[in-house]
Amino acid sequence: MPLKKPHNGLQNGDGNHEKDSRHFGNGSQQQNMDLNDHEGEHNLPSVLEVNSDSPVVNGIGSSLANGSLNLHSTVKRKLDGEKDYVFDKRLRYSVRQNESNCRFRDIVVRKEDGFTHILLSSQTSDNNALTPEIMKEVRRALCNASADDSKLLLLSAVGSVFCSGLDYSYLIGRLSNDRRKESTRIAEAIRDFVKAFIQFKKPIVVAINGPALGLGASILPLCDIVWASEKAWFQTPYATIRLTPAGCSSYTFPQILGVALANEMLFCGRKLTAQEACSRGLVSQVFWPTTFSQEVMLRVKEMASCSAVVLEESKCLVRSFLKSGLEDVNEKECQMLKQLWSSSKGLDSLFSYLQDKIYEV
Amino acid sequence: MPLKKPHNGLQNGDGNHEKDSRHFGNGSQQQNMDLNDHEGEHNLPSVLEVNSDSPVVNGIGSSLANGSLNLHSTVKRKLDGEKDYVFDKRLRYSVRQNESNCRFRDIVVRKEDGFTHILLSSQTSDNNALTPEIMKEVRRALCNASADDSKLLLLSAVGSVFCSGLDYSYLIGRLSNDRRKESTRIAEAIRDFVKAFIQFKKPIVVAINGPALGLGASILPLCDIVWASEKAWFQTPYATIRLTPAGCSSYTFPQILGVALANEMLFCGRKLTAQEACSRGLVSQVFWPTTFSQEVMLRVKEMASCSAVVLEESKCLVRSFLKSGLEDVNEKECQMLKQLWSSSKGLDSLFSYLQDKIYEV
Amino acid sequence: MPLKKPHNGLQNGDGNHEKDSRHFGNGSQQQNMDLNDHEGEHNLPSVLEVNSDSPVVNGIGSSLANGSLNLHSTVKRKLDGEKDYVFDKRLRYSVRQNESNCRFRDIVVRKEDGFTHILLSSQTSDNNALTPEIMKEVRRALCNASADDSKLLLLSAVGSVFCSGLDYSYLIGRLSNDRRKESTRIAEAIRDFVKAFIQFKKPIVVAINGPALGLGASILPLCDIVWASEKAWFQTPYATIRLTPAGCSSYTFPQILGVALANEMLFCGRKLTAQEACSRGLVSQVFWPTTFSQEVMLRVKEMASCSAVVLEESKCLVRSFLKSGLEDVNEKECQMLKQLWSSSKGLDSLFSYLQDKIYEV
Repeated sequence: MPLKKPHNGLQNGDGNHEKDSRHFGNGSQQQNMDLNDHEGEHNLPSVLEVNSDSPVVNGIGSSLANGSLNLHSTVKRKLDGEKDYVFDKRLRYSVRQNESNCRFRDIVVRKEDGFTHILLSSQTSDNNALTPEIMKEVRRALCNASADDSKLLLLSAVGSVFCSGLDYSYLIGRLSNDRRKESTRIAEAIRDFVKAFIQFKKPIVVAINGPALGLGASILPLCDIVWASEKAWFQTPYATIRLTPAGCSSYTFPQILGVALANEMLFCGRKLTAQEACSRGLVSQVFWPTTFSQEVMLRVKEMASCSAVVLEESKCLVRSFLKSGLEDVNEKECQMLKQLWSSSKGLDSLFSYLQDKIYEV
Repeated sequence: MPLKKPHNGLQNGDGNHEKDSRHFGNGSQQQNMDLNDHEGEHNLPSVLEVNSDSPVVNGIGSSLANGSLNLHSTVKRKLDGEKDYVFDKRLRYSVRQNESNCRFRDIVVRKEDGFTHILLSSQTSDNNALTPEIMKEVRRALCNASADDSKLLLLSAVGSVFCSGLDYSYLIGRLSNDRRKESTRIAEAIRDFVKAFIQFKKPIVVAINGPALGLGASILPLCDIVWASEKAWFQTPYATIRLTPAGCSSYTFPQILGVALANEMLFCGRKLTAQEACSRGLVSQVFWPTTFSQEVMLRVKEMASCSAVVLEESKCLVRSFLKSGLEDVNEKECQMLKQLWSSSKGLDSLFSYLQDKIYEV
Repeated sequence: MPLKKPHNGLQNGDGNHEKDSRHFGNGSQQQNMDLNDHEGEHNLPSVLEVNSDSPVVNGIGSSLANGSLNLHSTVKRKLDGEKDYVFDKRLRYSVRQNESNCRFRDIVVRKEDGFTHILLSSQTSDNNALTPEIMKEVRRALCNASADDSKLLLLSAVGSVFCSGLDYSYLIGRLSNDRRKESTRIAEAIRDFVKAFIQFKKPIVVAINGPALGLGASILPLCDIVWASEKAWFQTPYATIRLTPAGCSSYTFPQILGVALANEMLFCGRKLTAQEACSRGLVSQVFWPTTFSQEVMLRVKEMASCSAVVLEESKCLVRSFLKSGLEDVNEKECQMLKQLWSSSKGLDSLFSYLQDKIYEV
């Protein structure tokens, strides 16, 4: 990190910072907080329209934001087809040359001063649910952020839901098509997604604006600091929907919440409010929804003023004793899911449960 | 578990479910909650009379309830002498043939739809205190439940006390008789009892109706979900009564409660209320005493509707990283107790403390 | 511990117990609680004057208090130069002969009935900040206490601050003199100080009267019971002051507080009140400042009435699974600090931060 480059994220120029902060639902927008679609239509695209004709390239190698942004464009985004992006060391240089051209469909990546900001903003699933494709985008963004000059990563979400976990309609669709092949593919996508969090070396701050479900809640202990809005809540009803735990929650949840509460979450689908999650250690601190965005940004910027070496080495010390253990857990969990999905019995059980849910609705 | 058999526990027929639920002290019976003897005399035996003439055998191998139950019999139960029950794999088949004839003296085992319910209901000790014989009964019941078609285990207690831990009057009586032999026998009984919890593969739900002391509190982290009545409280005053920790509490308590509170419990006998135990992670959730039984039953039945494979595999994932460690801890703890009891100094210390207590009373 | 010797600490004779208890700021002195200097001048020296002409030697080998005490002497203490005290087993006997002559400059050690009381009372640093010399004194006192007939150790502080962590003015002074040599010396002093806590076999009770910062907070999980006054608070702003974690906090804090809160403390300098620290597991119990001293003494004396073997073996059971891990963590953390301090970049970062702080003031 030899020289400080001007950040090329959204805050550049033309007073878009004010609009930007509305993603967290602060200020005048509070009343829209749980109207996901509403926000999705009116606010999000107003700042996220990618103008692929004017990529911001600032020359010094690592412009990782997903292109420049046309603030006053129409609602629809031009979506680039998903590129076959290879994480091969030999290819890194050439890839880096083109990074400014990287587009993401279901996440937004913004390069800020000292940190990278990834926002879940799924266009291909509801409520920021995760599909293998979306998980791959997050992995790509994490990979980019690990190599750039940012000191830490901020992960948040657009809309009123943080992440609703695995996309079950996707899951059912694919598994009923080709059980054997798809169970492997999806389980491996989860494994690689979780692994990317375990292996990420810079501190990860997560800002939870709303509900975090399943895998969306499970990965939180793999992040380093978890700030939540009063509106957030947390649920991992794996057994209820006939699944075994994922995202290392079978290890991290008992570790953090105690075996009794962890199991109540994993087996009975116990829901934790933001305050409960905070008092039990899943969340670092809870903020008022109207000022959540500012509080998070203030703290992240202060953190980003720290020494990069100290941040990375501190994380290394905190995580070193867990890392190999977590990778094992991740492997085992995904192996278990694969077995479950590839067995007709496990699949039937899942299908009949989800079917019932659909009939209920 | 190829086919679902009708449950042959207490809920079968004749509207005994209502009476049954009184074991948790709900409804009209709330005022009797802390009058153990009262409850012991009036309610318990009314449902626990074992009619050994009509064993329920449903043919398909694993009828594990402790016989049928005559609900309107007299207070005294006919107690079968404790059988020499050998846990030898070669003998399992023949034992299974006779399982429906198994009687328990100090516990009640009821086969419910999808789960096994073990109730501590000691006739040979006060306040559900544990003796090697009672611990052996629990082990037998756990062994049976592990082999039957139940998906999970519910552990609770009859009366107003959950479990008062090791029976100290028994302990003193035996140790003053033959220190060397009895210290080994009792320590091994504890070891095997605790081991049975560590190794049990199906989820264990515990419902704590009242005080849980010593070993009765120590084993809770070896169970998976811990629901407590508002009337429950928890205490492990090992050092105070001149004992070292047991039940893996030397490992699980610091893990769950933090080293500071765990040590205050182990060294100073700090007592935790149900709410404190819940907010610190020892307990999953606290319920109001009057509805405690229903709340627990509702949740256990919902859990028992899950897939057996998912429940067992989830528990396996959560526990796999702890299991071997816990077995070591258990060995060490029991080794330490044996040393303490077989040394004249350790024994004198214990005796003089317990003597003082008796004089105080 | 074959026979009980009369304790030769401050409580001996002439009613000094009342004065003594004022170190915790109870009773009439409450209003002075946060006036460290005031207390330092008026109360402390009045009980700490060491009269080296009348060492209390009671013949039976292990008089470990720091000399007899002249209660009505002047404010200034005669400070012995720091002795080169060698912890060599071969030298132990001869050292023990002279232990009653050991003097401490920045701590006070008092031999009480059944326990040793170490009080941080730094004369050479502000707010009980730690220098290598002070840490060496604590190590010496721990070494003595491990060998004497006390059953446990009480650690507390004189004044209104428990411990403000590493002395940064000392750090800067030394590192700017000879970066390479001093970074090694100071890092090793921290390592040995922390190691002494990890390896101490008797239970350590800590009484936190006021703020505990940095290393002063980090070592708490290495102690066994942590009682705090309502006035205490806890902060480990390592990253903020451009340092990596020390005192095993990179391991123990995530373990106890959960990774989310631990990282907020280590990365963002999040401050915990006594109540927060208690509800999250860092502290065993919080007491009212006016009665803090009595509450602690009452409990410590009760603990000291337990069997020494049971106390030590219980601690051994609780700690055995952590010990080797903690020693590794300690090594790694100190290695990291040494690297940071010996690199010009790490040092510049630290200096410029601390410089800024000075300008701010």
